[in-house]
Amino acid sequence: MKKKAVVSLGHEALGYTTTEQWDAVKKTAKALADLAEADYQLTITHSNGPQVSMIHKAMAELRRVNPDYTPVPMCVCSAMSQGYVGYDIQNSLRSEFLSRGISTPVSAILTQVTVDPYDDAFYEPNKIIGRFMTREEADAEVAKGNYVTEVPGKGFRRVVAAPKPIDIVEIETIRTLAEAGQVVIACGGGGIPVIEQRHTLKGASAVIEKDSIAGKLAADLQADLLIILTGVEQVYTDYGKETQTGIASMTVAQAKAYIEEKQFGQGNMLPKIEAAITYLDSVPEGKVLITDLAHASEAAKGRTGTVIVRE
Amino acid sequence: MKKKAVVSLGHEALGYTTTEQWDAVKKTAKALADLAEADYQLTITHSNGPQVSMIHKAMAELRRVNPDYTPVPMCVCSAMSQGYVGYDIQNSLRSEFLSRGISTPVSAILTQVTVDPYDDAFYEPNKIIGRFMTREEADAEVAKGNYVTEVPGKGFRRVVAAPKPIDIVEIETIRTLAEAGQVVIACGGGGIPVIEQRHTLKGASAVIEKDSIAGKLAADLQADLLIILTGVEQVYTDYGKETQTGIASMTVAQAKAYIEEKQFGQGNMLPKIEAAITYLDSVPEGKVLITDLAHASEAAKGRTGTVIVRE
Repeated sequence: MKKKAVVSLGHEALGYTTTEQWDAVKKTAKALADLAEADYQLTITHSNGPQVSMIHKAMAELRRVNPDYTPVPMCVCSAMSQGYVGYDIQNSLRSEFLSRGISTPVSAILTQVTVDPYDDAFYEPNKIIGRFMTREEADAEVAKGNYVTEVPGKGFRRVVAAPKPIDIVEIETIRTLAEAGQVVIACGGGGIPVIEQRHTLKGASAVIEKDSIAGKLAADLQADLLIILTGVEQVYTDYGKETQTGIASMTVAQAKAYIEEKQFGQGNMLPKIEAAITYLDSVPEGKVLITDLAHASEAAKGRTGTVIVRE
Repeated sequence: MKKKAVVSLGHEALGYTTTEQWDAVKKTAKALADLAEADYQLTITHSNGPQVSMIHKAMAELRRVNPDYTPVPMCVCSAMSQGYVGYDIQNSLRSEFLSRGISTPVSAILTQVTVDPYDDAFYEPNKIIGRFMTREEADAEVAKGNYVTEVPGKGFRRVVAAPKPIDIVEIETIRTLAEAGQVVIACGGGGIPVIEQRHTLKGASAVIEKDSIAGKLAADLQADLLIILTGVEQVYTDYGKETQTGIASMTVAQAKAYIEEKQFGQGNMLPKIEAAITYLDSVPEGKVLITDLAHASEAAKGRTGTVIVRE
């Protein structure tokens, strides 16, 4: 049986436009194939910010031009974005695999994730999404019942709730494929957020942090390794200051001490470290690796990146 | 081990708008759950005409308003439509299952299907897609290198190539889930058509007939039953004439004789019968059932619909 790794891909792995994504996923595929060659079964999750934003805007434009079209809710845009990004990753990873003589099947699973309607996040939405808006556009969003935040000197951006994931609805399917040694792309964009109402799942106006779902996925699958690929080679103390120092490895206790010291940026490195802790609480013998795409293979060999372990 | 059924859902099972689809899939889910209760493992494929057309138009509108966005190719629109339709089917089927105490996992797999670049269909595109266009709109399509056809008295519509499916790229994943007894939604909209170029798959400007892929899927999975749900309760001879007669059952030889007599409408019943023959050639002991959604459960009990068997 192969070791299991859950890999979380950030924006850097995907780019912002259709053509950027097409090029970016080819590079991403190389890093992923290196991991597969190191004998890991891979379950891959990815961000979807620019992609879901593009789809959401396109659907709004369509309705503006042709009001006969019924609205496309955010949850459906999210499902479409899983199709869009999943297809590109699955396609490019298959190519990279075949060019190396690897025949492991790769597929993307549409994934819903339940959230708690009473999650504090719904009372205080704080996840920034989409592009910058003018004051007029921002006012229009507020009139629609949406939340916006002002970024001084730059304009306004929409904010949505980022509740914690409760359950990955399609986890049994993901597990079946992972146990069969296949590569699975799942929980794209954090998963389609849904609220359980008896037997029914209703799409929620929210976004689940992809790092948060990666930690949950790694815990549910009892993965041996959780790899969070982000924009930096390592986790740092005093990030961005002259005294910035890379952390080669830390325990959960050390990570918690750094959190107390506010070493990790909110909405940036902090959710990654929190995801690592969630996973290690569930899989005490597990290992978390945080690095960027360019150093993924080196980091998997223990040469760079930041390792987090339970003790 | 459960018997395996492949179910092909037509437009009737999905509706045309987001709200219609949401209502339609609930009814569809009841028919599918009846089949699951009759102890069939289900692999479901579905059409995506109105859905992919909506997405394609939305993406075109987005670019018109904001030319910074890069074009979204048809294959990506197709992937998005698999996300859109798959999410709704998977969600509503899960609800229907849970309300009946069935806990079988349901998931949708993004699926690519290879086609032959030298398929005759590329030289003579004949699959009508999208809404009616004015002469000006039709001229603009032709100027872009697309094909259109005139429907006398009604306007123009775009036509694309409908090549035969060669291979279902993600078949191993679909098979793994089917053998685990799970419900799989796959090959949505006939699958994302791709052309193999060495190790790479390039999106093709084409549409694969959903009936054609349903026959292929049922053959590949060696399914016990192929159910094609369409707009009519039975297959008929002299369809639409006073002498119209329902066919309760026929053999492949009889079906071929009817084809010779041109009893089945091209682009309508004919591809369904052809799909049935393809499947029965591969699974001689298999059974094909053609009926509409409203009669699916009755037909599965042998009370209506049209059954096709090898001999």
